[in-house]
Amino acid sequence: MQSGGMPEAPHIPWIERTPRRGRWLVGVSGGADSVALLRLLVAAGFRQLIVCHLDHCLRGRASTADARFVRQLAQELGLPCETGRTDVRALMRQRGESLETAARHARHGFFAKCAAKYRCRRILLAHHADDQAETVLWNLLRGSHGLKGMREEQTITMAGKPMRVVRPLLGLRRAALAGWLTAHGHGWREDASNREPLGVRNRLRNEALPLLREISGRDPVAAIIRGAQDCAEMQAIADEALAAARVLDPQGRLHLPALRRLPPALQRAALRAFLHDHRIMAVDRDLLDRACALIDAAGPAVVNLPGGDRLRRRAGRLWIESITAGCGGS
Amino acid sequence: MQSGGMPEAPHIPWIERTPRRGRWLVGVSGGADSVALLRLLVAAGFRQLIVCHLDHCLRGRASTADARFVRQLAQELGLPCETGRTDVRALMRQRGESLETAARHARHGFFAKCAAKYRCRRILLAHHADDQAETVLWNLLRGSHGLKGMREEQTITMAGKPMRVVRPLLGLRRAALAGWLTAHGHGWREDASNREPLGVRNRLRNEALPLLREISGRDPVAAIIRGAQDCAEMQAIADEALAAARVLDPQGRLHLPALRRLPPALQRAALRAFLHDHRIMAVDRDLLDRACALIDAAGPAVVNLPGGDRLRRRAGRLWIESITAGCGGS
Repeated sequence: MQSGGMPEAPHIPWIERTPRRGRWLVGVSGGADSVALLRLLVAAGFRQLIVCHLDHCLRGRASTADARFVRQLAQELGLPCETGRTDVRALMRQRGESLETAARHARHGFFAKCAAKYRCRRILLAHHADDQAETVLWNLLRGSHGLKGMREEQTITMAGKPMRVVRPLLGLRRAALAGWLTAHGHGWREDASNREPLGVRNRLRNEALPLLREISGRDPVAAIIRGAQDCAEMQAIADEALAAARVLDPQGRLHLPALRRLPPALQRAALRAFLHDHRIMAVDRDLLDRACALIDAAGPAVVNLPGGDRLRRRAGRLWIESITAGCGGS
Repeated sequence: MQSGGMPEAPHIPWIERTPRRGRWLVGVSGGADSVALLRLLVAAGFRQLIVCHLDHCLRGRASTADARFVRQLAQELGLPCETGRTDVRALMRQRGESLETAARHARHGFFAKCAAKYRCRRILLAHHADDQAETVLWNLLRGSHGLKGMREEQTITMAGKPMRVVRPLLGLRRAALAGWLTAHGHGWREDASNREPLGVRNRLRNEALPLLREISGRDPVAAIIRGAQDCAEMQAIADEALAAARVLDPQGRLHLPALRRLPPALQRAALRAFLHDHRIMAVDRDLLDRACALIDAAGPAVVNLPGGDRLRRRAGRLWIESITAGCGGS
């Protein structure tokens, strides 16, 4: 892929290991990141790509010019192009959602339409390492479990149907992508990333991360990404340990003798997972402490849950007793 | 402990569960946090306390006044008081250390002297939740494994001997401590915390955390503390899983058949722990990737380690081959 002194295409494991013949939607805003993604895919030999661009109507005439740029790019590359247009601010007011949520719903609806038209339920998005660091920091401030970022591959429900979302660029820095484009003489639309029209995001990017860099004298993006990868590894080990522990009985209740055989941290994780699987939201430290106290046969036998249900211990089992549905599980 | 409309003493699990009769050194700078720690201990019935104050000579006459304040406080409470004096800036220049490192060495040396004099090798320090959030953030920026803070209890080598260090206030906010002192009419020395004479710390506290609060509209200290607790729980599960995996042979080498039976994330953690236990520093992601490739019998059989040693696979084992000591382990 090297061409006459040009910098080599960046090393992207997902691209290297994926068959070229598959069909993929590609979300292209027109910014450096998504233009680089599209061109890297084409350079690697992917041909069955459908360029998808949603105009969020957030930047006036510039938004229209972004859409035009993306259409021309698709034409140059000989790829089909789907463009859509949603006034995200109007949608936000109409639905009483935040700008971020309204934009996400608009994109999901648009991608779902593209998926139906092309019978292709998988999409590539251009989130990169700098996006990831912002996400991790933002999730941390919002109270995520450890350091959590976007996953490289996940399934997201869009307009009621599952869509496989892949982010091949999560390991690459924004500057590396723009550098590769520049070296090859490829243009992009500056500021065309309408993926994150949110003040918080922009302030994390433009104020918080530069301040952390200045204070620490180190690159906070690399440090945060690495921390999130470490957490993901620890979480994977915890998930594996939990799966191996087999704490549920055939009725899906927590089997106390099995639970008591586990080390304390894993008991806690098992209870957290059990509550999460029963859609008990807002499981904070205090609730988890009280739930853990149920494991002890000499402790309390019932814990009130948010939403009115109860976690009950009886006959060597723990289960959720639903107030509305009468006595569940017993 | 409630006294006529006064706010109750804050809930401090360590204080509640610890026998009162034990002897403890207490590090007291004269700031609100350490004065609160000392007074809370006395209020809870601890009597065998030795007040330890090191004047770091960092704030001129104010430093001398801090030391005087602490001596008076100890006298008021009827406790023995040890004060020391080290010109930390001179020490820093003399040894070519950072101010933070010089200050830590000075404190450790001083605490070790107090420990010898009173035959007491355990010390209570007043680090609280705000300190902890700064530590976690700073560790993250420096590249810690996940989110890591100070531990409530740990053993630290001071002047060559082990010292048990306990931080009972890690769960409490600075404001809560100052509020409790104020409500009881107890004074303290403002700015007397010479525990962290470091620019980075102060800037994280005075610039980064307030900015993160402003951007997110949430309390970053609480979020960061919670994230670190979650990471500590995940780490505990991972440690438990690793201990149960039994991957070492009687010679202390990694037993490949055992290693290969583990799920991938745990294999990786086992290799990380093995390298760490052999004092291989700077184990980054790349080195760990290459080390993991050794698990595959069809892959490479040797990986160069920082410092010149090598990690070698032979006859179903992995071990560290020391260049200096000839052929180790085989």
